[in-house]
Amino acid sequence: MNITLAQAETAIAAAKEKANDIKTKMNICVVDSGANLVAFVRNDGAWLGSVDIAIKKAKTAVYFQMDTADLSPLVQPGKPLFNIEHSNDGLITFPGGVVIKDDNGDVIGAIGVSGSTVDDDEKVAKAGAKAL
Amino acid sequence: MNITLAQAETAIAAAKEKANDIKTKMNICVVDSGANLVAFVRNDGAWLGSVDIAIKKAKTAVYFQMDTADLSPLVQPGKPLFNIEHSNDGLITFPGGVVIKDDNGDVIGAIGVSGSTVDDDEKVAKAGAKAL
Amino acid sequence: MNITLAQAETAIAAAKEKANDIKTKMNICVVDSGANLVAFVRNDGAWLGSVDIAIKKAKTAVYFQMDTADLSPLVQPGKPLFNIEHSNDGLITFPGGVVIKDDNGDVIGAIGVSGSTVDDDEKVAKAGAKAL
Amino acid sequence: MNITLAQAETAIAAAKEKANDIKTKMNICVVDSGANLVAFVRNDGAWLGSVDIAIKKAKTAVYFQMDTADLSPLVQPGKPLFNIEHSNDGLITFPGGVVIKDDNGDVIGAIGVSGSTVDDDEKVAKAGAKAL
Repeated sequence: MNITLAQAETAIAAAKEKANDIKTKMNICVVDSGANLVAFVRNDGAWLGSVDIAIKKAKTAVYFQMDTADLSPLVQPGKPLFNIEHSNDGLITFPGGVVIKDDNGDVIGAIGVSGSTVDDDEKVAKAGAKAL
Repeated sequence: MNITLAQAETAIAAAKEKANDIKTKMNICVVDSGANLVAFVRNDGAWLGSVDIAIKKAKTAVYFQMDTADLSPLVQPGKPLFNIEHSNDGLITFPGGVVIKDDNGDVIGAIGVSGSTVDDDEKVAKAGAKAL
Repeated sequence: MNITLAQAETAIAAAKEKANDIKTKMNICVVDSGANLVAFVRNDGAWLGSVDIAIKKAKTAVYFQMDTADLSPLVQPGKPLFNIEHSNDGLITFPGGVVIKDDNGDVIGAIGVSGSTVDDDEKVAKAGAKAL
Repeated sequence: MNITLAQAETAIAAAKEKANDIKTKMNICVVDSGANLVAFVRNDGAWLGSVDIAIKKAKTAVYFQMDTADLSPLVQPGKPLFNIEHSNDGLITFPGGVVIKDDNGDVIGAIGVSGSTVDDDEKVAKAGAKAL
């Protein structure tokens, strides 16, 4: 029910390759179904502030069993989850956190990516998740 | 690759002079390329709440290798980085944090200023950065 | 002056091999010379509480430019650095954090390991550091 | 009743000179009578973990209106203030935090120093306090 380190390494390798293809420097993180860190890498020269953001994106995706991109519209002013980021010692609710599921559709973990535009972050995270 | 204390003191002296010229009381902070504190001063009577803001502005600029003024439009409601401030134990994303680069264009640190309007803060921070 | 991701991955691979040799399940972390995360892995089934301990061991080693094993005697009751662990959002001062130096003897990062006895943690951390 | 920035800079200049005399690399901090940061400098190459320790030493000295060296015996196991470091988001209770008083004997601030042995830290802090 939980992502293995071997699976996390496969996802990270695919994400690293995608980051390299689109010429970005990324922080890439995988957490398990308990939102605990499994693996992390930071490309040389990637933004330091994105270490924490990559981790929080992955955790946020597992916390609510959905990609962070699906949370973004719900957290805007006037929307149902406005300012939910104040919980759980800080969430990140913009794109770049993607859930990882097993063959039964159960969430076994998530990948979080940060270091470029949110579009690039999302692309790299999806490339990682797709590798499994 | 890292700002020295002597450089930080030069930047702070220039920022203090500018703060005095425009009759403001400022908190002024310099961090290195790892976002670690190098030097800090608070003018007599400057806002206490701005101690932490000046430090966070400098750290935020280094974390993402850009002036905090460039982050401001991206973090508004509906924009890509909305509520990014919940990461890294708190960011400050309005003007007043300015990156400091070496002759190769590499970020060697940043200066953060807080204590007046954000326009004044930005002016003082830029005066500090320009002194190097 | 900073450890690269490629070097960090070499150190982690060696540490993982050692952990496997001595039949332990470890959390292994590498930070750079600014105490920022570079790479992390957690063996399947390794203690969850050791995620944070491995990271804090690596950071502590960089913070004071010495192995955490060298700090342990100094932080005991009645000794000079008693309760230093309350600084820096928490330090870990028992063995398992080992500095990584370049050929000039400058600290370029550190490796932190947690998941078994401190003797085992230390062995695995040293195996990782030695691989560079 | 409060230390001025000019006084803090005088204290820091004296402490820097002493640090240089005894060939150490220090983090030096001055806080006011409200335990708020007034000035801070870090020597090039000084321990990163000592940024926070220097600040906490200065704050701790003001919090209890006594040098941190006077607190050390009181915080040991079995003693009246055992584990007081858990309060105030972390205290440092070993030597290196020294109160600064005005001519009436009132505490107007404190200086905190960290970066070497506690004996060296204390020497440098006292040199700073004595300059006023």
